This record gives sequence, structure tokens and C-alpha cells, in this order.
Amino acid sequence: MITTDILIIGAGPTGLFAVFEAGLLQMKCHLIDALPQPGGQLAELYPKKPIFDIPGYPEVLAGDLVNNLMEQIKQFQPGFTLGETAETIDKLDDGTFIVTTNKGTKHHAKAIAIAGGLGTFEPRKPLIDNIAEYEEKGVEYFVKDPELFRDKRIVIAGGGDSALDWSIFLSNVASEVTLVHRRNEFRGALDSVEKVQELKKLGKINLITPAEITAIEGNGHVERLTLDINGEQQTLDTDFFVPLFGLTPKLGAIANWGLEIEKNAIKVNNALDYQTNIDGIYAIGDVNIYPGKLKLILCGFHEATLMCQSVYNRLNPGKRYVLKYTTVSGVDGFDGTRKEAEKAVVKSIE
Amino acid sequence: MITTDILIIGAGPTGLFAVFEAGLLQMKCHLIDALPQPGGQLAELYPKKPIFDIPGYPEVLAGDLVNNLMEQIKQFQPGFTLGETAETIDKLDDGTFIVTTNKGTKHHAKAIAIAGGLGTFEPRKPLIDNIAEYEEKGVEYFVKDPELFRDKRIVIAGGGDSALDWSIFLSNVASEVTLVHRRNEFRGALDSVEKVQELKKLGKINLITPAEITAIEGNGHVERLTLDINGEQQTLDTDFFVPLFGLTPKLGAIANWGLEIEKNAIKVNNALDYQTNIDGIYAIGDVNIYPGKLKLILCGFHEATLMCQSVYNRLNPGKRYVLKYTTVSGVDGFDGTRKEAEKAVVKSIE
Repeated sequence: MITTDILIIGAGPTGLFAVFEAGLLQMKCHLIDALPQPGGQLAELYPKKPIFDIPGYPEVLAGDLVNNLMEQIKQFQPGFTLGETAETIDKLDDGTFIVTTNKGTKHHAKAIAIAGGLGTFEPRKPLIDNIAEYEEKGVEYFVKDPELFRDKRIVIAGGGDSALDWSIFLSNVASEVTLVHRRNEFRGALDSVEKVQELKKLGKINLITPAEITAIEGNGHVERLTLDINGEQQTLDTDFFVPLFGLTPKLGAIANWGLEIEKNAIKVNNALDYQTNIDGIYAIGDVNIYPGKLKLILCGFHEATLMCQSVYNRLNPGKRYVLKYTTVSGVDGFDGTRKEAEKAVVKSIE
Repeated sequence: MITTDILIIGAGPTGLFAVFEAGLLQMKCHLIDALPQPGGQLAELYPKKPIFDIPGYPEVLAGDLVNNLMEQIKQFQPGFTLGETAETIDKLDDGTFIVTTNKGTKHHAKAIAIAGGLGTFEPRKPLIDNIAEYEEKGVEYFVKDPELFRDKRIVIAGGGDSALDWSIFLSNVASEVTLVHRRNEFRGALDSVEKVQELKKLGKINLITPAEITAIEGNGHVERLTLDINGEQQTLDTDFFVPLFGLTPKLGAIANWGLEIEKNAIKVNNALDYQTNIDGIYAIGDVNIYPGKLKLILCGFHEATLMCQSVYNRLNPGKRYVLKYTTVSGVDGFDGTRKEAEKAVVKSIE
């Protein structure tokens, strides 16, 4: 059982920043995310794209913003349960919660902050009858750990940035990379398309287009795929099949937790502390809705901050919340480190 | 008459960021501030101190944050009325406003956003009977333009960072810099204290401590000061007297505009669009109050954003507000420049 003060569901920018604000108030956080790494959409969908409306950043790459947030919260030692989705919730008599993931990991927390963005990113799956049988047995919808493919044969399917970029990356890891796409044209960053072109010429990526994978065979693990190449069937031996057809956000199991839902988002009370209809469960960032709601990262930061204040008051009844300015008070990490402004000296001049 | 869409009173971080969000919605902004430069407290009180709680910045110097915000809003060409304070407001029959400053500058705007922070920073003044007579006639409470002092004699009074830093800076501008403080000890950044020590040794700063200025004389302009040095009177000829005794924030004339005030802050409606009791006047950032309000810069950024959305709806009745993501849509400046993410290409690989 993992125990924490605030269990944050969703490790996107809003969830990550909540760790910092909670830390300033001496509360520990643990985050659950379906994706294999922190950062949400920013890390998974557009890490190399610029964002122009983060206050104080005329321009910042989404991936850099995530890295900066990770650096900012490091001091507060957040825990992560990655590659799993929050499935069930139980409220105990003492007002605390137990959240269990799809893989059975249990988390015990004093408050829950749902920072689920547009929802759990679920992979779009190819229409192959028996594909479910081979999931995690050679079929992978995410590249969680590239080392899984070290010296193995891998077939990637897809025509966008993910398919291009992982083909490039894994061409140095796998023994054989085959990229299959149902069109001749790829859609992605120019340099990614050009790099795949180059690797194909060097024989480091096999390219098969236009083609679709129509069947999977194997004895308990992927061994062979059937391809439809312009109406002709062909087989291809491989160790792994990685279809990268994009992600669809789904609110998922959280939709069954008894929370008030409106327009596929979680209703919160009046934008004052972003608490839901269930006492002790908050919703922050893109996942919540209230009158005038804007789905912007900077709004999630604010909501995370007010949520932390509310949880603090909840966990420390009667204790007065005293706002501290980091410039004046510094920041004391749970790891024993301290950040602080250089102190003024009082010194006479001779 | 200066005309604009949103007149922002207060050019601190919240007011500055409002320019960006307004610009995304094609609304122009003009800012009024009592201080001689944009940035509010960050620029005036602690430009060299780090802030640790700006989301995405593990650490940023206050002055750098202001510079980054100025860079971020440059595209939207904000106007500035600096060194003046908003004094009176008139609401016209068409719902627009005219705001006049203490120096008579008139601004005509469709909406007002008060981003006044802790209030107008008013200088603490020395207790010298006739000092008001010499204000702007040799007595300056701010260094608005260092060139005013080029090749002149200047007496600075004070014992903190402002007095130290301006003495250092002006020692290369003025013909003679005298620093007077009522104690021997100065309170400031170690390197500032050491630099003044060094400049004193080089004869570039005259230091008189412990001493106080007790009288000003001159014929329509400062010519001579009387100093009390340990009970002994002495006179000192000078062209300028710059007392830097710190600033006190005052809500000022805005307190008389008919706005609901609570705890020296302006009440807003329920944290949904941060509008005050007067239709068309908003209050954002540290100057406002609502249940659970936190006086944090990151909250001001959020409030500024929701305020802009509300003003947009006000100025464009019936038109649907469509949120655009800067990563997807780019940012079109009023100066004809465009920022955008690199476009994906659609390209076949041979």
C-alpha cells in the first residue's frame, strides 16, 4: 500500500505543479498516470512543440516545461505510479481514500486531486480480431522502456510523429525496425520525415507502404504478422508489434466514481477551491468545469494552488493558513535541501 | 486623450500578463503605473531576488521575470503612462470610462482592470518642513531617469538596497555623489555594501554617517542641505536631494471610486471573472479579495486571463468565445509579427 497526503490522478503540468504547492505546505504527493512518463499531453503528444502562453515564457517547448516542472518539484520527492490507471475508489470511515489501479496497486491518501486533463489517453487500436490476446505479449501501444526492444525485431505501424520518431530512435536499439503505414505519405515534423528517409537509404529502417497489418500469429507471444500490401497478403516475422495510431482521451473509470459530470468534465464548486461534489475529492486543470472555465495550463496552476490551500485547511482544522512568499521564506525540501534568496547583510562602511 | 480597449491600472506582473491574454483576443491595452518603470514590486523592490514559485521556473530573478513578461507582450504593443497615478474615473453613457491621472493625462477605455497590487507605492518622505516645496525641484523620491543627474551634485539619503544601488550607479553619472545615512550600518546585499565601500575608498562616493538631513534651502530649486551629524549642524551644497527611505503601498484615489473595499482590497464576484461591484471594472492580482484568495503572482496570471475572457464577451455580445491554443494557432502580434510552431509536413518517403 502506497500512502500519501494528496493522491494526484494525472501527472500533466497541473498535477506536477500541485506537488510544489503541496510541498510548501508540508504535504506529500503521489501521482498516478496512464502514460509511461510524467508530463501528460506535453510529454506524450507534443514535447518538441512551442507553447507561447505560459506566463513569463515568451516561448517554451512543451517537453522543456515538463522538465522544468520536474526540477521544480524534485525537492518534494513525489512518488509516481506510471503506466496504470485509477480504477476504483473507496472512502474509509475516517474520511481518507483508497484508490486501486487497473493493475491492482493500492494507494491510501487523505485527499484526492483529479488532474486528469482530457482524460486517460487510451491508444487507438488496430482492428485485428485477436490483438487483445497479444497485448503485453509482443503488442505494445506505448514505448515505455526502449530497452525492451534491445536486439529484437520490431514492427511499428503508423504515419505520424510518434511512428516516425520511435522508428528513428529504435533503429539504434532494435536488431531490425520495420515501419508500416497505410499511405505513402507521412505527416510529421520535416526533420523527422527526412531522417526516416535517410535511415531507410542506409538500410536501418525497412519501410513498407502502403500496407496494413491484418493478422497476428504466435505461440503465447507475437511471432508473425500478416500484411496487406495493395491487396496482396504477405507475412513478416517479428518479436514485437507497436501500433502508434494516436491516443484518444477517455474519462475512464473515474466517470463511475459518483462525481457530477458535465460535458465530459468534472463539475467543481464555484472556482474557490475546486472541490467536487464528493468531500475531499478535487478536480483541477482541464478535467474540471465551472462557469467561464478555460482549459489553459496557467489556469491549472492556479487551481492546483487553491486546491492545496483547501486540503491544508481540511487536514489541519483550526490551524491558520499563513501564506509564505518563497522569496522571503525560502523553500525547504523533504530531501533536506533548502533554496533561499541571498540574505541581506547589516554592515558598516568604514 | 489616450484610447484603448482595456485600461490596466498597475504594471506589475499581473497587469503585464493581461496584455498578452487581451492581445490573443485582439484587444489593445494601456497601463498606468505610479512607478517610473513596468514590473511593480518586482522591478522596484526586489529585482535581483529569486522567486521559487512561478510555475515552470525552479528559480527566476524577479527582474528577469519582468523582462520575460515584457518580451512576451511586446508583440501586442501595450502603451504605458508611467510615473502617474490614476486619480478620477468617469463612466460615460455608452458604458466606457475616462480615467484621469494626478498629472491630468486622460485615458478613454472600454473596460478597466485594476491590477494595483498592494496599492500605489508612495515614497516614505523625510520629516523636513518645507520638502514639498522642492519636490520635482531638486527633491526626487525615485530615480526615474538617471540622465537627470548627469554631471550634477546629488545627495542620496537612506540605508537600504535602493540607496546603495543608486549611489553605485550614479557614481558614474553624477559629478558628485554623497550618501547620507542615520546609522553607520547599511542593510543590503553583501556585494552592494562592498561595492560602496570600494567606491568610497576611490573617492567616488562621499559617505556621511551617522547623519540626517534636517533642512533644505534654495531659490526655487534645491541648493543646500543642512545635516545633523551627531548633534552638530553642517551644510552641504548640492543640486539634487534623493531620499530613498522605502515605499508604502496605498490604495490611493481608487479607494474613492465607489468600489466595495474589504481589508484594504477590492472585492470581486466569486472568482469567476473578477469583476467588481461596478460593471466593467475588474480587479485582478494582489489588489482583489474573494474567499480563499492567495496573493500569489501565479494567481494573478489566471485572474488576468479570465478577466480578458469576460471583457471579450462584454465587447462582443453574442459572439462565441473560442479558446485557441497558441501551440496550434500561433500568436499574431499587432506589430505584424507572427509566432508559430513549426508546421507538420505531409510527405512521402521514397
